[in-house]
Amino acid sequence: MKLGVCYYPEHWPKSRWPQDAQEMRDMGIAYVRIGEFSWSTIEPEPGELHWQWLDEALEILHQHGLKVILGTPTATPPKWLVDRYPGMLAKDQQGRVRHFGSRRHYSFASLEYREECRRIVTLMAQRYGAHPAVVCWQTDNEYGCHDTILSYAEADLSAFRIWLKEKYGTVSALNKAWGNTFWSMDYRSFDEVELPNLTVTEANPSHRLDFQRCCSDQVVAFNKLQVEILRHYSQDRDLVHNYMGFFTAFDHHKVGQDLDVASWDTYPLGFLDQESIYTAEEKHTYLRVGHPDFGAFHHDLYRGCGKGRLWIMEQQPGPVNWAPHNPIPVDGAVRLWTWEAFSHGAELVSYFRWRQAPFAQEQMHAGLLRPDGKAAEGASEAAQVAQEIAQLSLATGLDADELMALPESGRVALMFDYDACWSLDIQPQSEAYRYLFWCYRLYEALRELGLSVDIIPPSASLDTYELLLLPAQVHISDELLTRLNQFQGVLLIGPRSGSKTQQYHIPANLPPGPLADLLPLTVERVDALPEHTQPHVYGRWGEGKLCHWHEQIATKLPSLLVDESGKPVLVGEGKCFYLAACLDKALLKTSLAKLAEKAGLSAEYLPSGMRIRQRGALLFVFNYGAKTGCFQPDNAELLLGSATLSTAGVAIWRRH
Amino acid sequence: MKLGVCYYPEHWPKSRWPQDAQEMRDMGIAYVRIGEFSWSTIEPEPGELHWQWLDEALEILHQHGLKVILGTPTATPPKWLVDRYPGMLAKDQQGRVRHFGSRRHYSFASLEYREECRRIVTLMAQRYGAHPAVVCWQTDNEYGCHDTILSYAEADLSAFRIWLKEKYGTVSALNKAWGNTFWSMDYRSFDEVELPNLTVTEANPSHRLDFQRCCSDQVVAFNKLQVEILRHYSQDRDLVHNYMGFFTAFDHHKVGQDLDVASWDTYPLGFLDQESIYTAEEKHTYLRVGHPDFGAFHHDLYRGCGKGRLWIMEQQPGPVNWAPHNPIPVDGAVRLWTWEAFSHGAELVSYFRWRQAPFAQEQMHAGLLRPDGKAAEGASEAAQVAQEIAQLSLATGLDADELMALPESGRVALMFDYDACWSLDIQPQSEAYRYLFWCYRLYEALRELGLSVDIIPPSASLDTYELLLLPAQVHISDELLTRLNQFQGVLLIGPRSGSKTQQYHIPANLPPGPLADLLPLTVERVDALPEHTQPHVYGRWGEGKLCHWHEQIATKLPSLLVDESGKPVLVGEGKCFYLAACLDKALLKTSLAKLAEKAGLSAEYLPSGMRIRQRGALLFVFNYGAKTGCFQPDNAELLLGSATLSTAGVAIWRRH
Amino acid sequence: MKLGVCYYPEHWPKSRWPQDAQEMRDMGIAYVRIGEFSWSTIEPEPGELHWQWLDEALEILHQHGLKVILGTPTATPPKWLVDRYPGMLAKDQQGRVRHFGSRRHYSFASLEYREECRRIVTLMAQRYGAHPAVVCWQTDNEYGCHDTILSYAEADLSAFRIWLKEKYGTVSALNKAWGNTFWSMDYRSFDEVELPNLTVTEANPSHRLDFQRCCSDQVVAFNKLQVEILRHYSQDRDLVHNYMGFFTAFDHHKVGQDLDVASWDTYPLGFLDQESIYTAEEKHTYLRVGHPDFGAFHHDLYRGCGKGRLWIMEQQPGPVNWAPHNPIPVDGAVRLWTWEAFSHGAELVSYFRWRQAPFAQEQMHAGLLRPDGKAAEGASEAAQVAQEIAQLSLATGLDADELMALPESGRVALMFDYDACWSLDIQPQSEAYRYLFWCYRLYEALRELGLSVDIIPPSASLDTYELLLLPAQVHISDELLTRLNQFQGVLLIGPRSGSKTQQYHIPANLPPGPLADLLPLTVERVDALPEHTQPHVYGRWGEGKLCHWHEQIATKLPSLLVDESGKPVLVGEGKCFYLAACLDKALLKTSLAKLAEKAGLSAEYLPSGMRIRQRGALLFVFNYGAKTGCFQPDNAELLLGSATLSTAGVAIWRRH
Repeated sequence: MKLGVCYYPEHWPKSRWPQDAQEMRDMGIAYVRIGEFSWSTIEPEPGELHWQWLDEALEILHQHGLKVILGTPTATPPKWLVDRYPGMLAKDQQGRVRHFGSRRHYSFASLEYREECRRIVTLMAQRYGAHPAVVCWQTDNEYGCHDTILSYAEADLSAFRIWLKEKYGTVSALNKAWGNTFWSMDYRSFDEVELPNLTVTEANPSHRLDFQRCCSDQVVAFNKLQVEILRHYSQDRDLVHNYMGFFTAFDHHKVGQDLDVASWDTYPLGFLDQESIYTAEEKHTYLRVGHPDFGAFHHDLYRGCGKGRLWIMEQQPGPVNWAPHNPIPVDGAVRLWTWEAFSHGAELVSYFRWRQAPFAQEQMHAGLLRPDGKAAEGASEAAQVAQEIAQLSLATGLDADELMALPESGRVALMFDYDACWSLDIQPQSEAYRYLFWCYRLYEALRELGLSVDIIPPSASLDTYELLLLPAQVHISDELLTRLNQFQGVLLIGPRSGSKTQQYHIPANLPPGPLADLLPLTVERVDALPEHTQPHVYGRWGEGKLCHWHEQIATKLPSLLVDESGKPVLVGEGKCFYLAACLDKALLKTSLAKLAEKAGLSAEYLPSGMRIRQRGALLFVFNYGAKTGCFQPDNAELLLGSATLSTAGVAIWRRH
Repeated sequence: MKLGVCYYPEHWPKSRWPQDAQEMRDMGIAYVRIGEFSWSTIEPEPGELHWQWLDEALEILHQHGLKVILGTPTATPPKWLVDRYPGMLAKDQQGRVRHFGSRRHYSFASLEYREECRRIVTLMAQRYGAHPAVVCWQTDNEYGCHDTILSYAEADLSAFRIWLKEKYGTVSALNKAWGNTFWSMDYRSFDEVELPNLTVTEANPSHRLDFQRCCSDQVVAFNKLQVEILRHYSQDRDLVHNYMGFFTAFDHHKVGQDLDVASWDTYPLGFLDQESIYTAEEKHTYLRVGHPDFGAFHHDLYRGCGKGRLWIMEQQPGPVNWAPHNPIPVDGAVRLWTWEAFSHGAELVSYFRWRQAPFAQEQMHAGLLRPDGKAAEGASEAAQVAQEIAQLSLATGLDADELMALPESGRVALMFDYDACWSLDIQPQSEAYRYLFWCYRLYEALRELGLSVDIIPPSASLDTYELLLLPAQVHISDELLTRLNQFQGVLLIGPRSGSKTQQYHIPANLPPGPLADLLPLTVERVDALPEHTQPHVYGRWGEGKLCHWHEQIATKLPSLLVDESGKPVLVGEGKCFYLAACLDKALLKTSLAKLAEKAGLSAEYLPSGMRIRQRGALLFVFNYGAKTGCFQPDNAELLLGSATLSTAGVAIWRRH
Repeated sequence: MKLGVCYYPEHWPKSRWPQDAQEMRDMGIAYVRIGEFSWSTIEPEPGELHWQWLDEALEILHQHGLKVILGTPTATPPKWLVDRYPGMLAKDQQGRVRHFGSRRHYSFASLEYREECRRIVTLMAQRYGAHPAVVCWQTDNEYGCHDTILSYAEADLSAFRIWLKEKYGTVSALNKAWGNTFWSMDYRSFDEVELPNLTVTEANPSHRLDFQRCCSDQVVAFNKLQVEILRHYSQDRDLVHNYMGFFTAFDHHKVGQDLDVASWDTYPLGFLDQESIYTAEEKHTYLRVGHPDFGAFHHDLYRGCGKGRLWIMEQQPGPVNWAPHNPIPVDGAVRLWTWEAFSHGAELVSYFRWRQAPFAQEQMHAGLLRPDGKAAEGASEAAQVAQEIAQLSLATGLDADELMALPESGRVALMFDYDACWSLDIQPQSEAYRYLFWCYRLYEALRELGLSVDIIPPSASLDTYELLLLPAQVHISDELLTRLNQFQGVLLIGPRSGSKTQQYHIPANLPPGPLADLLPLTVERVDALPEHTQPHVYGRWGEGKLCHWHEQIATKLPSLLVDESGKPVLVGEGKCFYLAACLDKALLKTSLAKLAEKAGLSAEYLPSGMRIRQRGALLFVFNYGAKTGCFQPDNAELLLGSATLSTAGVAIWRRH
């Protein structure tokens, strides 16, 4: 449990740097991320490298005992480079070039730009790879931010044709895989294939899905190029990238395979305000503290992408600038968010940014310091956390590293699959039914039941889990099927699971395709509903409403929930269950409580807005609600806070 | 009264074809449409023609006694063709090329593409024109689908300049006709004229209207090119095209002049979900059965386009894939829709499609068979209709052909004019006032009064009608004026009628222009209102509200409805009436009931959601309502169903 | 107080012109604007000039004693000119060329087009500069209409680079001013700078602000080019341009410096319908009369742009055509609007247009005459005003010129700054907080208190004012600061004032920057709120809600309003006050009433929908409300109307 901060020495006079470093130390900060937007300062003219400022900055930070996460500056190529390689720029779906003037102005598929990245990363790695202050490298910054994964430029088309040739070998294989005969869409060679934008109507969904996969693979390759250089010149350093909230356009599990730690950038208020997943009521209730599951969901998701290792690279420290509205967090929220992250296994929580910039795009984005260099409100909460970590160490006898190493509970898992996400969203049938939203609402229901959850990739070992949810695992690989068949715990398979082959065909035996052995049923047709029609549902497991999606299934399995005409909604027996619809929040919760019970897990309904999280013997309690709430665990000793928590309150208990 | 189905042998192994044909026969299907998207299968390489599969498919269908509607494949030109003639691609209003990758990727005005169409249609017609199975040709598929009538490419500009030269002769005539002096928009030659897109603000409405007319004429010419070839090589076959719902971008009456039958593709649930014409309440109430007048309106409209002959080429057989939400039809809906079509004179109802495709864009679109080849729910309803037709033949002593030939009632007509539609929508003045919506609501009111309606082109004979409505006949030609003057029945002229000359000028004597002799009044100005202001209206004929539009008229005609300041809303005497506003639904209905009474027609207010339709002595009754309803005609004998009908119920009576 | 009209002789046969002129005279019209869209009539072929029609038109108007405002025709360059210089066309933010076909199809920065303007304006000025009928020239027409200030074409880029070089001298000065180091956005030369559109995410706000300033300066230069020619050839004539409602994209104060009079085009109903500033309730209540402050606000704003001289160049005379809905004004509204303008110092109110055109884009736009040449309703109201002016002259003993010269009250001022508007709107932080809207609501509150207001530029003398409001004066220049320090009256400084430097940096001492001496406080952070959260506010000055924006300030100044946690909302003492938030309408009004009281002004709460306006001894009373209202001033003599006014009623009193 360590604190960090994002710092831009190039924005401030050198004379201030020592003071900054000292104040960081005094505040309890151990890690400093620098460098990730500094290319034009490092190389103001092509080939003319200005290292001195960075040498000095590293030296000062090092002298103050601060550990440095050094960013490669490839998210912000300088103007001269863009002018030299105009083909490196991305094009949006409308075919418009996305110009220089902000950041992320490149296509991942541009080979010219990759060569420039190779050059600058090599130069940096050679110079600083063995620097004693440098303990970690961050590749680039927020892959995909500003909708930059899908690009429709010439470089992307070339990459796509190569990718397809590699995947399919022959163009007739591709034609068959895509079902191109459907509308005379057959190609005679890979050179005839175009990108799936600006078509007269919807392009072939197999075409779209393969393009998404290809673009995701470009990100993997782009990242790997940097990883290989950094591994070579800077051994024994952690490699990390900083992911974002509610972002699924590339396969984070694949990128994560090449890195040591997953980190993400968490802005609870900005996302609450801007995301359509949240209802108007949620936006109002949680205005100043964020939705109770926003942080937790992503912590658990990205820990799964990081092979168990998680950092917060950017933690919101006050009001931000980029959402439609940017309110001030309630007092204590920054501390709450920090402890929530630690409770989910974060080794490091790093605030963005040290000092609010008085110029350029983010000048209304708070830092730990104000633009005038004085402490902002977030600083005192960060300092408080630093002290509380020490307190917790004392109380537990564990140092910060040992606290980080506390085991996850590992009993409940929710499977998250980027490929399934793309597959579902390409043809949602009912427009409000989105993969990510559905996963989030399942996670929320589990968490409102007091359960600690792992969010795992399809490739993860299932051995330790008592309860496993597959929200909508569209394509079931043979390998996954094998493991599901071997799984010993309680299994809930959600709607659309097994509904497509790898090539986005309906399976020959109809959905759930390969799952039919595990769950003897057939999805005969689908009722894809608008918001205004939510049929009543009831049965042995409760009553409520279904929404968006209802599969009409033929099965002999017992029905636990049915609709008013008796059509099954939730079926299963023993340890294996199939949910043929999306459910409203309350019914989802009671259904999951039933499953938890079957799995031998004790679910507890928590007070509104309160959440708990178990790690090893420690139990963390958080209050996101507008009202004061109380949570008193059995057989537990209070280490921090109290049983009664006001808004943004935090308590830590040790269970016996 | 025959059943048909749309079939894609090229999507399935040949080994399955005989079974498919046999099952079609067994289900009572007589007609099969094939071929319309198969160009790349027919001609995988330029000039290399693969006819064998189609020879065999036709042979198998023929052997099973099925009649074939053969589609020309010009809606889906192959990739190699597009690459050879990139100028054939359309451009959207934003100037973006609309690329290959789905369907309808061509501009109607492309001369290069027309030559390719001539080539492939000639080849097909030569080969199959005399084939005994082929009883009909469908030209292309759904002209205009995916907003493809207006295109802004170079080919379109050339065509427009030629069209204008032909129409105006001299550029000064054009300048005068458009009033180009208004903003110095004068041209010095036809070569200076550009397309009316991407102008700084609204282009000249005369410019826009002529462009719409020109684009419509390109469709007519495109269709005629195929018609001429088919007439030459395939004599005595019906020629047909399949139109769409709520689509007015080209003049269907003109296209229909060159064909033998009009057909259309009816998807009651998809249109209910996606169209802004329907209120939220209607979308909820009719979720699973469609709006009660959707099918009927289009049947009557397209029967008018087909010179009295109507087919349904594609009938929704279950949930579809392309609307924002795609619910399952209520049990019986497919049967209901089929009988509704027959009651409006459809000779054929053909389901789309035979078997649900497991790949490509429409894989979530139901067929009569499921993707696994087993019968879906729609199949049993189709089979039921087939049996019921036989039942009806027995009961009436009429065979299917004779049942088709039952006379229309021909007593009430609503005039529909594509040119008026474009004219009104180019400058609606009140944005919610749309020509099509207004016609639809008038039709709905007539039908709720139990009246059977013909929807007729301006050129139609008016002789048989007792009641004629002109909803908004913007331009009144001399020829139409003559016939209106001769008309003996009750005439209702709606707002905006006679408000523009052919060139979109205000007539010199102000609206209603040439109608002023028939209806001595002058429209002095127009009140174009937002939704939130719907003035109260009352008078001898009832009370209610007006909406969107209210013309202030000077007239000595008696007022039947006035607003609160006494301004006339509905005026007239004898047999001729003028409606100076749009009315709310209830008042529209009572006003039309008054007119029906004057016309000697007996209007009957039907139970909510119920509709009737008279053909010859047969009276068809349908229940679209959520509740069971009852309708018992006087002096009638029940042939099918019962007086009490639950949702989707159908009854057929014979009146004495 | 004179009446005028806009007239297009080129749209009508010459034979009609004398009748038109005579009828204008008879109606009481003194001024006629002509010519501003007539380029293609004047010069149908390049260099071939047809003056005769204009000679004759001027002659006829002159013979009838009408004074002419002659428009330069540069808003509508002919097609041949555009074809000759295609680079003159603007590009929109999406990079699309904005084509010929309507009007305003040019970029202000095109040097080629400026040369053509120089040519045609010189020719016109040479020919008519000394014509006895011509008393005024209007440059171009409605600069910026149809969003034409910001253009992204090559000409604009060139102009921007030159402008930047002039402003910054060196590129390193520019890099520093913009804070380009932030995301490696540094430039090495001015030639590397691009336009701030189509960037991957938001461009640098300093970049955006400078581009807006540059585009504004192009308008100034474009206008000045014409001014210089007209001053040379047409001495002693007034020069004017016609501005628009709710339009802020260029600096009208700067353009106004080069002209003699400011005029604007007022369409109260169209703007009510289309503008998002108005609530649904306001749109409903004021449907037929317009919002009570729409005209007044702009009259006072543009009088400030016109150095005290104001005309209405286009006054809505009936229903228009360009809003989403176009209702008919209530009887009396045209008269009401005309008198409102006079009461704010308008010398001239000119109606648009004389006769409704039966062709082209605006054929549904009413004129004083109908398309058939008969008088429309607006004509009688215009004639009534003409008679009432005569009546008022009699009653007061002042002629029309003297009536125009009545002094403004000059006691309350609201400062309006285009640069502040751009600055705030570039980064609003809370998306509904717009500079213009906030100024408008402050103005409305003042006016509901019966106060007569001047809207002044930052450069205006403050000497005469008792009460001064700075709504959100983002950048405070040294010069303004000096004058504020010297100001003797009561001063209210609004939120965001002093929050940015000229270069859009946060000031080193934090906001309110240079105002901190005047108002000892620091804005520590900002709460930027969505609509759904409006915290309760109360204190010594009243209670209510704050919205959109709340600055947390540190200060020792007394709090007059605070939020529920005691944070200051309105602070100050003596004569200087700071408002740290936007307030709801009622609280805004009570707060301003307190300030007025401190300033020794007598505020009076007016009946709903009623407004008053003082000029010299005259007091004008207007009723915009739906209900009849009564206003009886003390010590006053009624000159026109009565104390009780129905909707659209007008009264004029003389105060003793």
